[in-house]
Amino acid sequence: MEFLQLPNRTSGNRKFGLTSIIDKGTPLGELEHILKDYHHFIDIAKFGMGTAYVTPNLKEKVNLYKKYGIKPYFGGTLFEKCYAQQKISEYLKCLKNLEIEWVEVSNGTIDITLEERLGIIQRVKNDFFVIAEVGSKDSNQEMPIGKWQEEIKTLLEAGCEYVITEGRDSGTSGIYDQSGSLKADLIRQLVKGIDSTKIIFEAPTTKHQCFFINELGANVNLGNVNIKDVLLLETQRWGLRSDTFDLGDCACRLPS
Amino acid sequence: MEFLQLPNRTSGNRKFGLTSIIDKGTPLGELEHILKDYHHFIDIAKFGMGTAYVTPNLKEKVNLYKKYGIKPYFGGTLFEKCYAQQKISEYLKCLKNLEIEWVEVSNGTIDITLEERLGIIQRVKNDFFVIAEVGSKDSNQEMPIGKWQEEIKTLLEAGCEYVITEGRDSGTSGIYDQSGSLKADLIRQLVKGIDSTKIIFEAPTTKHQCFFINELGANVNLGNVNIKDVLLLETQRWGLRSDTFDLGDCACRLPS
Amino acid sequence: MEFLQLPNRTSGNRKFGLTSIIDKGTPLGELEHILKDYHHFIDIAKFGMGTAYVTPNLKEKVNLYKKYGIKPYFGGTLFEKCYAQQKISEYLKCLKNLEIEWVEVSNGTIDITLEERLGIIQRVKNDFFVIAEVGSKDSNQEMPIGKWQEEIKTLLEAGCEYVITEGRDSGTSGIYDQSGSLKADLIRQLVKGIDSTKIIFEAPTTKHQCFFINELGANVNLGNVNIKDVLLLETQRWGLRSDTFDLGDCACRLPS
Repeated sequence: MEFLQLPNRTSGNRKFGLTSIIDKGTPLGELEHILKDYHHFIDIAKFGMGTAYVTPNLKEKVNLYKKYGIKPYFGGTLFEKCYAQQKISEYLKCLKNLEIEWVEVSNGTIDITLEERLGIIQRVKNDFFVIAEVGSKDSNQEMPIGKWQEEIKTLLEAGCEYVITEGRDSGTSGIYDQSGSLKADLIRQLVKGIDSTKIIFEAPTTKHQCFFINELGANVNLGNVNIKDVLLLETQRWGLRSDTFDLGDCACRLPS
Repeated sequence: MEFLQLPNRTSGNRKFGLTSIIDKGTPLGELEHILKDYHHFIDIAKFGMGTAYVTPNLKEKVNLYKKYGIKPYFGGTLFEKCYAQQKISEYLKCLKNLEIEWVEVSNGTIDITLEERLGIIQRVKNDFFVIAEVGSKDSNQEMPIGKWQEEIKTLLEAGCEYVITEGRDSGTSGIYDQSGSLKADLIRQLVKGIDSTKIIFEAPTTKHQCFFINELGANVNLGNVNIKDVLLLETQRWGLRSDTFDLGDCACRLPS
Repeated sequence: MEFLQLPNRTSGNRKFGLTSIIDKGTPLGELEHILKDYHHFIDIAKFGMGTAYVTPNLKEKVNLYKKYGIKPYFGGTLFEKCYAQQKISEYLKCLKNLEIEWVEVSNGTIDITLEERLGIIQRVKNDFFVIAEVGSKDSNQEMPIGKWQEEIKTLLEAGCEYVITEGRDSGTSGIYDQSGSLKADLIRQLVKGIDSTKIIFEAPTTKHQCFFINELGANVNLGNVNIKDVLLLETQRWGLRSDTFDLGDCACRLPS
């Protein structure tokens, strides 16, 4: 079928329009089934919630993602655990051994000052592509918009490839309030004056994904996407689902 | 195990007691695992939410369903997208090429008058079996019971094989209110004077499924069933789950 | 990776620190993928919600679990259905034929007095290992703490290997209130004076699992775990997830 007028989607080795999935322990055999069919819809794969440390066949899974041109990396909580136990060197060495090229620097669970994080970024950016996460997993911590913007700009200028806005896997903190509702005003303010192709918005549910697509276009970068939802996300980006039906034929508001 | 007294279930090429699943992008390899074990519990398979248009190996998936005697069709949102872009001819041609025999005519997302829909049904019913959907995806639109009944009767008389009552994949519109609760009175009124073996009730959660089973018997037609839930739905129909435990040994209230 | 200081986890043929999953109809091919990677994280597998009775390839699934050293058994609802239809002898014979060594005796759906249940336990305990379930699936039935404790003690003294505290697959009854919140005080009282290594707490969601881990340590026995969540549960037990990040290096409060 190729007879409908649909939004232009970026493709191939995309710079934006990214779908970053979260791997919470998909078995290798199942992952093979998913990637065989849908690899071209996935750009980045995060081993989330510390799973990298306990996955028995980690090397095979990393290699499988790489075989399909998908960038694997480990979520920030593991980075923070290593930081808290002063094991960053061991952690980076391990990433090298696994031939992982991307690293997340975050402070979602423990307090690491921006200055400290910038120091770490400085230290690793020659060896890795860096993704920085902004926002806390603690839904009681509110950050003023100005601080969101300043942190994002500073992190991008420091050499990060992308900045992720924290939403948890449940969508209940950071850019979300405790009930799971998006802080829409925060998002709209956030993208003013910032190159939104450099932000990955954590959007764990299809409802959240549709908000971002309707707001920022078919090629918004979305993260923490359930690996089961990648085809569905694609139909949403193409305006084929009821929730994004009115997206129009050229609703690619990115890059602005 | 065959020692319990359980409700009579229809079987084989059922006319009622249907389970219609929604396929939101199950990878081919995974679908093979599911159908190998549970094909005899599935009658109809809907490629939902526009996924048909972006599924890379669509023909293989369609063929796999057909191999197991399951009727594949494409959800109404894709029909409505084609209608909105005046591509119904291209759409029908594509269904023919894929050897799909069923087509859904709906107005869940855009307004298509009953008259227009009847015209389309007239046009396609010689080439396809038609499923019509009644009710809106917009949870703010309330339709009076009389209108539900009248539409359903008119659509069946026009030659539709089945009428689906809209519930969305989330169970939050049509026969459900916004909070996901069933409009039980609506359902009870609805089936009065209508052959309920011709209605497929969208029931995306097991809680909703249990309501319909307890209300209308083991062989109620249920739609939008998560493909992961087909075995569970069967235990519910057989009165083996706590929620339908009291269904009794002969609680097949269909056909009445 | 083996450079972090983490809680001591029991391993191998564990006596406690158990993960008991619920199988709601995982197809055989998919189960093979899951167990190949994660079998060492799973101790017990419950065919839940009556699914055992309608699973077409039951013997193959039972054998697959056993091949990996996992103890398969059938959930209590099926036991209660057999009890209600006076088919306990047929049920036990069927378990023998399938070479299943564990049996659950429960009263979650129908009323079976403690005395009657003790009689059944007496009858089966020479041939089977017995798991007893305490608490009702009816969220309106509240049991005083003293009765919880007394029942648990009595059942353990009667020869049960483990006692399960009812939570349903949805976490909405027994140790949970109707909204899905844990009755934390009930839990804290419950474990006083009882060997909590003999209790399996039903904890269907990762949020519930984290509560028990933070409260009772990395090696708390958890049941009704979604088979998809077993790796994630392991990261939670190891203090690698944000929610259990502060679990510490030796937070194994079991056995006390």
